[in-house]
Amino acid sequence: MDNLILLTADELSLRISRLRHAAEAIGAKGTLLLTDNAMLYYLTGRVFSGWALIPVDPAMPPLWFIRRPVEMAGENVIEIRKPEEIPSRIVDLGLPLPDAVGYEYDALPYSTVTRLQAVFPDARHYNASPICAMARSVKTPLEISMMERSGAIQTDVYERIPSLFSPGMTDYELDVAIETLSRQRGCLGQFRIAGKSMEFFMGNVLTGENADAPSPYDFALGGKGMNPSLPVGATGEEIKSGTTVSVDVNGDYTGYMTDMTRVFAYGDIPREAIEAHECSIEIHREFARRALPGVKASELFEMARDMADKAGFGRYFMGHRQKAGFCGHGVGIEINEIPVIAPRSRDILLAGNAIALEPKFVIPRVGAVGIENTYIITDAGARCITNAPEAILPLI
Amino acid sequence: MDNLILLTADELSLRISRLRHAAEAIGAKGTLLLTDNAMLYYLTGRVFSGWALIPVDPAMPPLWFIRRPVEMAGENVIEIRKPEEIPSRIVDLGLPLPDAVGYEYDALPYSTVTRLQAVFPDARHYNASPICAMARSVKTPLEISMMERSGAIQTDVYERIPSLFSPGMTDYELDVAIETLSRQRGCLGQFRIAGKSMEFFMGNVLTGENADAPSPYDFALGGKGMNPSLPVGATGEEIKSGTTVSVDVNGDYTGYMTDMTRVFAYGDIPREAIEAHECSIEIHREFARRALPGVKASELFEMARDMADKAGFGRYFMGHRQKAGFCGHGVGIEINEIPVIAPRSRDILLAGNAIALEPKFVIPRVGAVGIENTYIITDAGARCITNAPEAILPLI
Repeated sequence: MDNLILLTADELSLRISRLRHAAEAIGAKGTLLLTDNAMLYYLTGRVFSGWALIPVDPAMPPLWFIRRPVEMAGENVIEIRKPEEIPSRIVDLGLPLPDAVGYEYDALPYSTVTRLQAVFPDARHYNASPICAMARSVKTPLEISMMERSGAIQTDVYERIPSLFSPGMTDYELDVAIETLSRQRGCLGQFRIAGKSMEFFMGNVLTGENADAPSPYDFALGGKGMNPSLPVGATGEEIKSGTTVSVDVNGDYTGYMTDMTRVFAYGDIPREAIEAHECSIEIHREFARRALPGVKASELFEMARDMADKAGFGRYFMGHRQKAGFCGHGVGIEINEIPVIAPRSRDILLAGNAIALEPKFVIPRVGAVGIENTYIITDAGARCITNAPEAILPLI
Repeated sequence: MDNLILLTADELSLRISRLRHAAEAIGAKGTLLLTDNAMLYYLTGRVFSGWALIPVDPAMPPLWFIRRPVEMAGENVIEIRKPEEIPSRIVDLGLPLPDAVGYEYDALPYSTVTRLQAVFPDARHYNASPICAMARSVKTPLEISMMERSGAIQTDVYERIPSLFSPGMTDYELDVAIETLSRQRGCLGQFRIAGKSMEFFMGNVLTGENADAPSPYDFALGGKGMNPSLPVGATGEEIKSGTTVSVDVNGDYTGYMTDMTRVFAYGDIPREAIEAHECSIEIHREFARRALPGVKASELFEMARDMADKAGFGRYFMGHRQKAGFCGHGVGIEINEIPVIAPRSRDILLAGNAIALEPKFVIPRVGAVGIENTYIITDAGARCITNAPEAILPLI
């Protein structure tokens, strides 16, 4: 028998108390009933098929209902086949049925939520997704150490990118070479995205005109992709002299992702591209100083946009034919966590936030420039955990 | 300006009529409002961010509301920023507002559906997911040709697997080598799964004891995986002499997936494993004869289980420590389509179904055996489109 909970008792108790505080902060009552893989992984350190019942009241124990895998042990671990068995199991334990239940409305399919709501027909139902997002936005020291490990390996991989290139290569071939090296170094490949609308495989390698190709997804940059069933990223065209190659490849080495973008040049690229890249690096420097606990995420977006405008690159900032509505985002188990660095974001930075900042510019016909780094927010400023060289490096 | 619709007029009209017939078959009224990527790709040949409004009444035109990418053209293509704009745009066109609207309850998050329902506050709401599943379960000739193309390339890749192996390799290293070859041959990597609970990267390579490790996911087989955040597949242990290696790697080369499993042996493996593998091949032969239009999916499961029992391998059929509840499934844009070959399945086979059949056996300490093929159901029986050699092949 394996233990269901892979976290230490202290770590588990820290995460549950974060969740409870987030619930109390918005006045949520009763219990959270959570089943999305990202939340189960957060709460136990493993993905399983089941339901975590986390009462808001700290006097009540969390219950772990598990469907699969079989043969799992642990305190308050209860094997069931379907969620309809949950109420009777609660009663069996001599515990009261909740009068209010929160479900992951933003993560779970409509059918799944309505089925769960029917399990507690007399309870008041509410959306637990904002509670989960808020709790997970402040990383624990263990989570930060896992992100640091991802960032260190991802940095190693990125430093070898020039050695993977040879003249005549297509953007897709370089993408596959980087993916392969990443996988060989232990990248899990998995790129968890909250919600259903965004899809991605493993890497986004953009060169030349393709950096300006609008995509349907809410990523910072687009690219046409290899196939209209997954319209993002490389297209299979040859990397041409005089263009940049922007590399934004999966950094999930531990279940926690770091997000990093670096830019390479093949041959001579225009002065404008180099200057816009330098502007991106300056935005990062300013962010590292100003992204303190208590600062509004929207102010940090405005700071970045103002710096881009003042440098004369406003028309290329966060895209050219189509612009992204943000220049940074929370990251961790999923790629699109809070806080979001966007003009209308209401998020306020907290110590322990992990934020990927990606002020980028699309220079028509040349490609994308600008870097992305993942930062941990601390009282002394934002600490970068993706430390590959930031300048545009030559390929060959 | 790009054309939003990448399908020919005939293909588009065929797919919309399939959807309308499926809607009529269950008495659905009004209009379908679809936005899940898999359905948008089915209807237009591309993924975009937007909403397809497909009235059940063939006298009414489909409308295509698009948010991203920008710069898309086409008949009845209407650019909007949010779904709340849809009703006024319908009225602008002089069309009536629908009195009933079907949404993808099984695919979309609860929050997304309730937001869309509020867009049509006076309409009756219903679940369009079963309609979509039914329409997509019968592939058009174009879809079949795309699946055949995927199957042919996947077959080529599988035939080269023995050449990728060298003694001392781990299951993970072999997995990465196969993934790399697949990507080099144009595999999109994308592994679309309906719903939220199943996650997968690209390949499942199982050897020895790990084939018996229970997984949380509803796949035929499990494996512990490299990390508890994605507990499925290879573990990084060395492939040992006397074990089998079961390879089930992504076959999405066209936006349509084929699903194929083959088994390799390293060194001598027990007679029992070879015989169970032969039993799997016999089940495939029998399926190819009996899987005709009109046949119940549940009967085909029973046939497979009975053959496994008669051969004396019932205890290993579809897993040993933990058993899968099915031995085949529809496949196409997503990996888990209908019909499902399972004991309690109510699906009836139709000509044009694409079914991945995977009668597998887990032999403790040896590994998994048994093959998986993708078939197109025809009046003359099931036609296999994944034609790599079926016997257990030696590695080295």
